[in-house]
Amino acid sequence: MPTPTPDAPAARPAGPVTLQQVAERAGVSSATASRALHGSSGTRIVGEELRKRVLDAARELRYVSNAPAQALARSTTSVVGVVVHDVADPYFAAIAAGAMGVAREHGLLVMLAATFRDPELELDYLARLRAQRARAVILAGSGFADREFTRRLAAEADAYRADGGHVIAVGSHGIAADTVRPANRAGAALAVRHLYDLGHRRFGIVSGPRSLTTVRDRLDGARRQLRALGLPLTPGQVVDGGFTREQARTAARTLLTGPSAPTALVVLNDVMAAGVLAALREDLGLRVPDQVSVVGFDDVPFAADLNPPLTTIRLPLADIGTQAMHMILTGPTVTPRTVDVDAELVPRSSTAPAPQP
Amino acid sequence: MPTPTPDAPAARPAGPVTLQQVAERAGVSSATASRALHGSSGTRIVGEELRKRVLDAARELRYVSNAPAQALARSTTSVVGVVVHDVADPYFAAIAAGAMGVAREHGLLVMLAATFRDPELELDYLARLRAQRARAVILAGSGFADREFTRRLAAEADAYRADGGHVIAVGSHGIAADTVRPANRAGAALAVRHLYDLGHRRFGIVSGPRSLTTVRDRLDGARRQLRALGLPLTPGQVVDGGFTREQARTAARTLLTGPSAPTALVVLNDVMAAGVLAALREDLGLRVPDQVSVVGFDDVPFAADLNPPLTTIRLPLADIGTQAMHMILTGPTVTPRTVDVDAELVPRSSTAPAPQP
Repeated sequence: MPTPTPDAPAARPAGPVTLQQVAERAGVSSATASRALHGSSGTRIVGEELRKRVLDAARELRYVSNAPAQALARSTTSVVGVVVHDVADPYFAAIAAGAMGVAREHGLLVMLAATFRDPELELDYLARLRAQRARAVILAGSGFADREFTRRLAAEADAYRADGGHVIAVGSHGIAADTVRPANRAGAALAVRHLYDLGHRRFGIVSGPRSLTTVRDRLDGARRQLRALGLPLTPGQVVDGGFTREQARTAARTLLTGPSAPTALVVLNDVMAAGVLAALREDLGLRVPDQVSVVGFDDVPFAADLNPPLTTIRLPLADIGTQAMHMILTGPTVTPRTVDVDAELVPRSSTAPAPQP
Repeated sequence: MPTPTPDAPAARPAGPVTLQQVAERAGVSSATASRALHGSSGTRIVGEELRKRVLDAARELRYVSNAPAQALARSTTSVVGVVVHDVADPYFAAIAAGAMGVAREHGLLVMLAATFRDPELELDYLARLRAQRARAVILAGSGFADREFTRRLAAEADAYRADGGHVIAVGSHGIAADTVRPANRAGAALAVRHLYDLGHRRFGIVSGPRSLTTVRDRLDGARRQLRALGLPLTPGQVVDGGFTREQARTAARTLLTGPSAPTALVVLNDVMAAGVLAALREDLGLRVPDQVSVVGFDDVPFAADLNPPLTTIRLPLADIGTQAMHMILTGPTVTPRTVDVDAELVPRSSTAPAPQP
C-alpha cells in the first residue's frame, strides 16, 4: 500500500486503520505515535509539534485505538457489565439507568445483558464478560435459590476476581461479593403491617417465581410479619403471579374467588400489581380500595399513574445502580462489603380501611 | 512457576489463566491445546484422548478464551451494540428487549449504551464500539436534527463500515445505513384523524425536544393532517413536554389555561401522556374523556393501565428490535435497505366525542 504523504488527500485504507499507518502519515515512528496518542508507553516526552502531527494524522485517517489490543496489554477495559433478568421490566431499567449515569461521568461503557431468568445464561454472560476483560460486573437480577447453581456461580465469580475483575451483587446471590442489599424482608413486613393497621385480617399474596431469592426474601418477610400478628399464612393464600402482569391478573382471580376471599393483597412487585388492579376492576368488578386493598413493591415510575395510584413499598432503584457503580469506582476490598438499601411505604390510593364484614 | 502435574490439585494461578498454562497442565503443546479448544488453527485433527485432556485441564484451571486476543485475530466479536437515549424509558426498553431476544437465540452479546440524548455521547459510543470491534451497532435513539452532527455521524458510520462493522438505524438519522423506519408521520396523522372524526376541532399538541428527528417527524405528520382538514396549527397550540412525564404535566397546564383551550390533545409519546393525564385529573380537575380527549404515541406496556386506559398510536416496539437484529444476521448489503414499520390506532378510554360547546 502506498504511503500517503502529509499533503495527500486522506485516502481511507480498507480494514481498520493501524497505528503504523498513522505513524507513516505523520512521518514518525510507531513508538512516537503511540506516545503521542496514549501518552503512556515511556517517559520520553513527545514535542508539541510532533504530537500535533500525529493527532492530525489520526483524525484524518479516522484512527481509533484498538480496544482489544489495549485490553490485552492492560488486562482490563473500560467496560462494566450489568446483568439483569429483563430489560423491559422497569425495575431493572431504573437500576441500570442509575448505574449508567455514574458510568457516564467516569468514562465507562456499560454493557447491559439480559438473562430472561435463565441461570445458565447468567453463567454464560459472566464467563463472556470475563473473556472480554470487563473491569466489573453488576449482577442486578435476583439470585437463584439453587445450591448447585450457586456453587457454579461462586466459582465463576472467584475466577473473575482472580483475573483482576470485580463482581457486585444486588441482593442475596449466596456468593462472597460486594453486595447492595435491598430490604426485601423488611419491605414486605411493612406492607403487611400497613394493611393490618387499616383493620385488614384476610390476606392474600401474589408471589413470583419461587426459584428467585428476591421472591423468597419478600415472601419470608410477609410470612414472618403475619405470624407475628397471629395470622399465619396457609398455602391457599399464596398464588404465583410469575412476576408478569398477565399471570398476576390470573392469580388475582384465583385468590378472590374462594369462600373467604381476602380484603388485602400484598403483591410482590409493581408490574404484577398492574395486572392485579386490572383483574379487580375489569374481571371481578371489585372496587379498589373500598372492597379490596392492594400494596405493590418497588415503586417503579408508572406506579403513581395506575388506577387507582398504587400504594407500594419503595426501593430507591436508581440509587441501587449508583451504589453498585460507586463500589466499582472505589475498587475491590479484601473482605466483601455490604451496603444496605432501605425500603419505605409510599401510601397512595389503593389502600383503605378494611370493609365492614 | 512449577508446572502442576495432571494429578495435582487444581491450584489457581494469579492473573488470567493462559493457553500455555492449560497446555502445560495437559502435557501438550500450545498449538495442540489451541486446536483442541478452538478447533480452527489448522487441519491436523486432535485425537479424542488428547482433546479430552486439554478440555479437562481448561475446566480445572477455569480457563476462558481470551476474547480481546480472538477479536484481534478475527477483527470482529460476538458483541452487538444498541445505542439508546434512556434505558429507563419503556420505549427503548421494549426495542432493546426485542433485539436481545434474537441475540440470545444466536449467541450474540448485546452491549446496551445510553446517551441521555447527548449527541456527543452518541459519537463517542459509536467510536468506542468500533474500537471494541463490535460486529454491529443499532442506533435505536432518535436522530438529531443538526447538519454538522449528522455529517460527523455519517463519517463515523462510514469508518465503522470500512472496518467491517454494520450500522443499523431506527428512524431517520440522515445517514446511508440499513434502517428500520417507524411510521412516525403517518401515526401522528392517525391520531389527528381519530380526534377529528370524534368531532374535535380545537387541538393542542404536547411535543418533545425539537432537536430530535422523531419529534419533527411526528409533529410534521400532525401538522400536515390538520392543515389538510382545514385546521392549520398556530404556534400557541404546540408546547414542548420534553419527552418526560413531569415536563409534559406542566405543558398540559399551559395548553389548557388559554381562552380557547383545546378539547383534543395529541401527545407525542406515552411517557408524556401519563403526565398529561395526571395534570388533567389532579391539577386541573378536568374529566378525561368527557371534557378533554387524549391520544398518546408508542403503546408502551403501561399505556393500558393508565387512568383512564390510554388511546394511543401503537408502534410494534419489540418488532423494531427484532427487525434490526435480523438485518445484522443477514449481514450488510451493497445498497442500504429500509424496513417500514406501520403504526396503528389503539382506541381505549381516553378519547370520546367532543363535548358540546
